[in-house]
Amino acid sequence: MSRPRRRERIAFQGERGAFSEEAIGRLLDPGVDVLPCQRFEDVFHHLKENKVDGAVIPIENTLAGSVYENYDHLQKFELPIVAETKVRIVHNLIAAPGVRYSKIRRVFSHPVALDQCRHFFARNPHIEKVTFYDTAGSVKMIMEQRPPDAAAIASTVAAYTYGGHILRRSIEDDRQNFTRFFLLRTPAYASRMPRRKGRGIQWKTSLVFTTRNIPGALFRCLASFALRDINLTKIESRPLRGKPWEYLFYLDFLGHIEELNVRNALGHLAEIADMTRVLGCYPRGD
Amino acid sequence: MSRPRRRERIAFQGERGAFSEEAIGRLLDPGVDVLPCQRFEDVFHHLKENKVDGAVIPIENTLAGSVYENYDHLQKFELPIVAETKVRIVHNLIAAPGVRYSKIRRVFSHPVALDQCRHFFARNPHIEKVTFYDTAGSVKMIMEQRPPDAAAIASTVAAYTYGGHILRRSIEDDRQNFTRFFLLRTPAYASRMPRRKGRGIQWKTSLVFTTRNIPGALFRCLASFALRDINLTKIESRPLRGKPWEYLFYLDFLGHIEELNVRNALGHLAEIADMTRVLGCYPRGD
Repeated sequence: MSRPRRRERIAFQGERGAFSEEAIGRLLDPGVDVLPCQRFEDVFHHLKENKVDGAVIPIENTLAGSVYENYDHLQKFELPIVAETKVRIVHNLIAAPGVRYSKIRRVFSHPVALDQCRHFFARNPHIEKVTFYDTAGSVKMIMEQRPPDAAAIASTVAAYTYGGHILRRSIEDDRQNFTRFFLLRTPAYASRMPRRKGRGIQWKTSLVFTTRNIPGALFRCLASFALRDINLTKIESRPLRGKPWEYLFYLDFLGHIEELNVRNALGHLAEIADMTRVLGCYPRGD
Repeated sequence: MSRPRRRERIAFQGERGAFSEEAIGRLLDPGVDVLPCQRFEDVFHHLKENKVDGAVIPIENTLAGSVYENYDHLQKFELPIVAETKVRIVHNLIAAPGVRYSKIRRVFSHPVALDQCRHFFARNPHIEKVTFYDTAGSVKMIMEQRPPDAAAIASTVAAYTYGGHILRRSIEDDRQNFTRFFLLRTPAYASRMPRRKGRGIQWKTSLVFTTRNIPGALFRCLASFALRDINLTKIESRPLRGKPWEYLFYLDFLGHIEELNVRNALGHLAEIADMTRVLGCYPRGD
């Protein structure tokens, strides 16, 4: 008799019902177990120490920008990116069942979510914004404390998770609001994954590098890709610790690390950069 | 009889004694009046509406990275950068006079400051970190409330401003901790400023641009500078609103906008970029 397979456990930052949990639903089979963590750093630590089988982290939002802290963690923890996905951020006004829209005077949520619903608050000047540490956590709180005059702003998944009632759907100002998430695995797990499955899948590679401190250094590094018609999809810079006013650069480009032109580009980059490291090679999301 | 000249008034974010006030001391004559503001957005609004004569904002820190929000405001408010300076961030443990170091059990400060003093907290596990909205504000609070077991982490200027007593100097983990600040003026004020004073001063220019969405677009834009041996000192990207997964790029380079090679580079960039705008041309700080 074969041993029943243990269910996978995936760490994420936030309360149950966070947008990261929506990303887990898109990246993995239904029925994985999840481990909510308080801080991004905890998510990385759990995976590094093999306490979970994977981690899902947000890396950038089309309105708020990169989740810079997670770039720093990617560099530090060396946990490979094996997949990406993009989630549309829909903010809903959620209250405990029985609470009527006309009674709402206070709305709790994470400051970024409150800020992304400015039009709603401008149209409703009698409603006060109250900052809370987490979007889904604000739903959890109003479901526990049942204030008769308060609502929360969070995802549809958060409303379902805690049994909240959606009073107004999609109250965000800008519908071009997407967050990109990465699925991280341990290096051992990633090395066992199939490298290329199926033709027609577009691949993406993420890497980090530092330039030498000479004029035109970044330009020369980007030449490794441009001269081979490799399309960059993102560049991000972060300060280099211990070297004030020098930077780490994070690049995403279209291509698989086993393609000849990508191998050549990475070889060329290694000649001219101070340090380079591939952070992951994964199918392009959506 | 000539009318006495009105004292200049400069807006900054934070409480009196914030690191921004230290930057004001370096950028302007002593004796300017200051206007502390709650939010960065308020600082920009006050200058835009001519309620102050200038504004001083932090733009990047060598450990925490860019102050991304201020990049967004620079683009939106179109207030020219006329000077920069760099301030070394020294974190001190400050208590009300009479409070002894051995009695301290709680330390209040902004989360970034607390995070930059990890070694201090590791050596003192009996001391609890308590997050507060502002470093200087935490000194103000302990001087008002006089808790017998609490201290704050803030600048030397904050200690002087509120009469706090410095129990431990320079408790930050990493002394390579600098923040770069910009002085902003109104466009009218900046247009009256001398364009080039004195030889031997090195100039810097900051600009923002968007690329066309084609392969190699960023590389081509950087070529405008690299092909003329113009040295980039910083590149930053921020999401472009309304165009998911496209970016605004902010560049700083060494050179004055009236130098021939800089004029040529800007002309070349304008040919290949979708939008370009100079944010300021100012003497290199320090």
